[in-house]
Amino acid sequence: MSVIRLNTPYLVFLGDALSELEAKTGHGVAFWRPGQCVGQLRYANCKADTGLPDLDVGQAVRAGARSLLIGVAPSGGGIKPEWVSTLVHALESGLDIVSGMHKPLQSIPRLANTASRNGQSLVDVRVPPADIPLASGRKRSGRRVLTVGTDCCVGKKYTALALHRVMIDAGMHATFRATGQTGIMIAGGGIPLDAVVADFLPGAAEMLTPDNEPDHWDVIEGQGSLFHPAYAAVTLGLLHGSQPDALILCHEAGRKTIDEYPEYSVPPLPECIQRYTEAARLTHPQAVCIGLSINTSNLAIAERQACLDQFSDMTGLPCVDPL
Amino acid sequence: MSVIRLNTPYLVFLGDALSELEAKTGHGVAFWRPGQCVGQLRYANCKADTGLPDLDVGQAVRAGARSLLIGVAPSGGGIKPEWVSTLVHALESGLDIVSGMHKPLQSIPRLANTASRNGQSLVDVRVPPADIPLASGRKRSGRRVLTVGTDCCVGKKYTALALHRVMIDAGMHATFRATGQTGIMIAGGGIPLDAVVADFLPGAAEMLTPDNEPDHWDVIEGQGSLFHPAYAAVTLGLLHGSQPDALILCHEAGRKTIDEYPEYSVPPLPECIQRYTEAARLTHPQAVCIGLSINTSNLAIAERQACLDQFSDMTGLPCVDPL
Repeated sequence: MSVIRLNTPYLVFLGDALSELEAKTGHGVAFWRPGQCVGQLRYANCKADTGLPDLDVGQAVRAGARSLLIGVAPSGGGIKPEWVSTLVHALESGLDIVSGMHKPLQSIPRLANTASRNGQSLVDVRVPPADIPLASGRKRSGRRVLTVGTDCCVGKKYTALALHRVMIDAGMHATFRATGQTGIMIAGGGIPLDAVVADFLPGAAEMLTPDNEPDHWDVIEGQGSLFHPAYAAVTLGLLHGSQPDALILCHEAGRKTIDEYPEYSVPPLPECIQRYTEAARLTHPQAVCIGLSINTSNLAIAERQACLDQFSDMTGLPCVDPL
Repeated sequence: MSVIRLNTPYLVFLGDALSELEAKTGHGVAFWRPGQCVGQLRYANCKADTGLPDLDVGQAVRAGARSLLIGVAPSGGGIKPEWVSTLVHALESGLDIVSGMHKPLQSIPRLANTASRNGQSLVDVRVPPADIPLASGRKRSGRRVLTVGTDCCVGKKYTALALHRVMIDAGMHATFRATGQTGIMIAGGGIPLDAVVADFLPGAAEMLTPDNEPDHWDVIEGQGSLFHPAYAAVTLGLLHGSQPDALILCHEAGRKTIDEYPEYSVPPLPECIQRYTEAARLTHPQAVCIGLSINTSNLAIAERQACLDQFSDMTGLPCVDPL
């Protein structure tokens, strides 16, 4: 019974990425955890660049790498046949392989055989740990802050990572807790909550944020939205299991409807805050929303501060754009 | 992509049940769907009796049985070795085996081999179908009523089954939709929602309650409770995906705290109704709570009507004890 733990540092594999967008995962890991990446591995035709040093497998191993992390996601989400010999070579050189692809690494016989022969791990970060317990509902020691959203893709992961960085820089005692695949790769561990069986979702969130020192903060990556017709259950399970003291509501300025569900409106922000707080208080009666993180990138630069001021007036809470 | 469908009628297997309590599943199926059971199979030392005719496998097959349904759950939840030769004989005689046990039927080699040789199915009703889609959030035709609870084990399944029976007796066009293992055995199909991966929970609820005739009612078995620290996510996913027009709140008279979570209070009933209605309106803005189903079996007979009257005054809604 444990959360996923990855062996770091990484060699970030970009392979034959067709664009920077395909290499989004690699960029995220290199941006948030440069000290955890020894370099990148790119083929001659690679169109992406994270700025990390270009290394081959042997150089990466000598630089201390312990895992090759697949930082590219071609459309279709599969491991390309052209990559397999590089991945086999990495396994034979003593690296684990870390993947967020839909297709399990174990389903590729050459990888499965090589990993088992060499005692290396094939880690699919989409696969949750086995034996997650039912939630106990017990209040845990330590403090927790959770990012929640008016919708999906409004900056919950970014906000949590940015907040965690600021807290660490300020000398606070804090841990970023990842709940999705890219977050797990950045953090070097976590639980992909959307893949957990429904009954065990709050138990997984409890496991991810265990008892801690009184002054320690878990900074928890939110998932989904309470106002999303497909993902609200995941959001509620995380909210209940993580027992946040503090919530930060994330929103994209100008978004009026739920992404890809145009018949579903984003409620007014004060209502969002009230609904999240009400739900959080089931397991933590003192939970409060402490601020808003607004993605203003859709607005003209001149309009951004006015937007933040307006949301701040509307909610009585600090509003920032962390980007 | 389909819900579980069982082949009926059943031969209800009670085997060597030590008590009527161990045979609870068999009793439930025999009580709610007597016309769907050709008989029961009991060993000489069986201490339970559903009242169905005692038949052996051959007699059951001649009476039209298509599945042997394991209606007994010994503590530990396993298939007893003493049962296996009966189950093998049933498979060889052309019956499927239906089980709600934790241990999969396929994990018992004699059953797996016999089933595959004879082309019969081993059906574990705890296992959800594969390929459940994400929820679409699209409003569907037909009408739906969902039982919801102040807690677990307050009569949600019983209330839905009783309501469905009354609707059918009144000549209405209605289908009971099962979301848990015993309900699935009673209904002859359904989806065990607690075992669905969190992201796909509302999609499973949508699949279970598809478009239908305008005057058709799905009567949906509720799960968990919005006020339960471990199960609220399942409850919310079902509430969002099933898009009920009508909610019936189920409660056990006198229950003050969540079962096995004594530090969690059951909220006042008007607050429960408000929270359920608010949550349901995300996917169906006209959702309303139409009544309360109260289990008064803990009260003295003389106190029961007064209790129902009191809850009715408190909420302004009809309150009944369906038992």
